[in-house]
Amino acid sequence: MESSAFYTMKGYELAANTQITTAMEDYLEMICRLEKEEAGPVRIRALSQKLHVKPSSASKMVSNLQEKGLVTSKKYGEIHLTDSGRTFGRYLLYRHDLLHRFLCFLNHSQNELEQVEKIEHFVDEKTVRSIQAFLDSLPQESKM
Amino acid sequence: MESSAFYTMKGYELAANTQITTAMEDYLEMICRLEKEEAGPVRIRALSQKLHVKPSSASKMVSNLQEKGLVTSKKYGEIHLTDSGRTFGRYLLYRHDLLHRFLCFLNHSQNELEQVEKIEHFVDEKTVRSIQAFLDSLPQESKM
Repeated sequence: MESSAFYTMKGYELAANTQITTAMEDYLEMICRLEKEEAGPVRIRALSQKLHVKPSSASKMVSNLQEKGLVTSKKYGEIHLTDSGRTFGRYLLYRHDLLHRFLCFLNHSQNELEQVEKIEHFVDEKTVRSIQAFLDSLPQESKM
Repeated sequence: MESSAFYTMKGYELAANTQITTAMEDYLEMICRLEKEEAGPVRIRALSQKLHVKPSSASKMVSNLQEKGLVTSKKYGEIHLTDSGRTFGRYLLYRHDLLHRFLCFLNHSQNELEQVEKIEHFVDEKTVRSIQAFLDSLPQESKM
C-alpha cells in the first residue's frame, strides 16, 4: 500500500472520531494547504488573511484545534500541525479535491468551489470512497 | 410541457429567490409531504410529531413560513400551503428524492437519508439538473 493511501485511511478514521465543527474543519484544511504551499510553519496572520477573518478570530480557532490535539501554537504566531492534525488535514484536502472533481464532472464545469465549500463537511466516509471508485471507473477521456 | 415539469421549474426559481433557512426548508418539505400523504390540511400537532419538536417550536416556524408567504395558518392549528409554498415544497421533495436516488446509486445502498438530510440544503439548481440528467442517462438496469 502506498503512503498516500495509508494517510487517507487514517484520515477517514480521524474524520469519524474527532468531533470538530465545520468551521474548525475549514481552518484545519487551510492550515494544511498553507503548510504544503509554503513548505514551512504557518503563521496566524497568513491564515487569517487567507480565510478573510481577523487575526484574533484565527487565534481563537487555533486554540480550539490545539485543545483537540491537532496543532501546536508557538511564539510569533507559528502554527505547527501535529501528526494527527496533518493526517486529518490531508484527508480534508483530499475530500475537498475529490468533491470538486466530481461536481465539475457532473456539471461539465471548471469551478464548483462554492458548492464544495458548503457540501464537503457533510459527506461521509462511505460516500467519499464511492465517489473515488466512481471517478476511477470513468473512461480516461471523460475525467477532468 | 407536463404539469410536474412546470412545477419543478417554478420550484427552482423559488429556491433561488426565496431566502429561507435550512430549518424552514425542512418544515416546508414536511408540510408538503404530509399534505400529499393525508390529502387534507396539515395540523401543527402532526407536523411537530413528524419532526420530533415541540408544538410551540413548530408554531413559531410556521409563523416564519407565513411571513414569507409560503403558508397560511388557521384556527385549530391547520396549516395551508399557498400556491408558491406548494410549488417550493414540491421542489424540495423532488430535490430530496433525487439526491436519495443518486446517493443510493453511488453507494450501492438502499438508505442514504442521513446524508441527504445534511446535504440537500446546499445543492444548487445547476447540480440538481445535472444529477437528474446523469440518472436519466444510466442504463435502465442500473437505476434503483
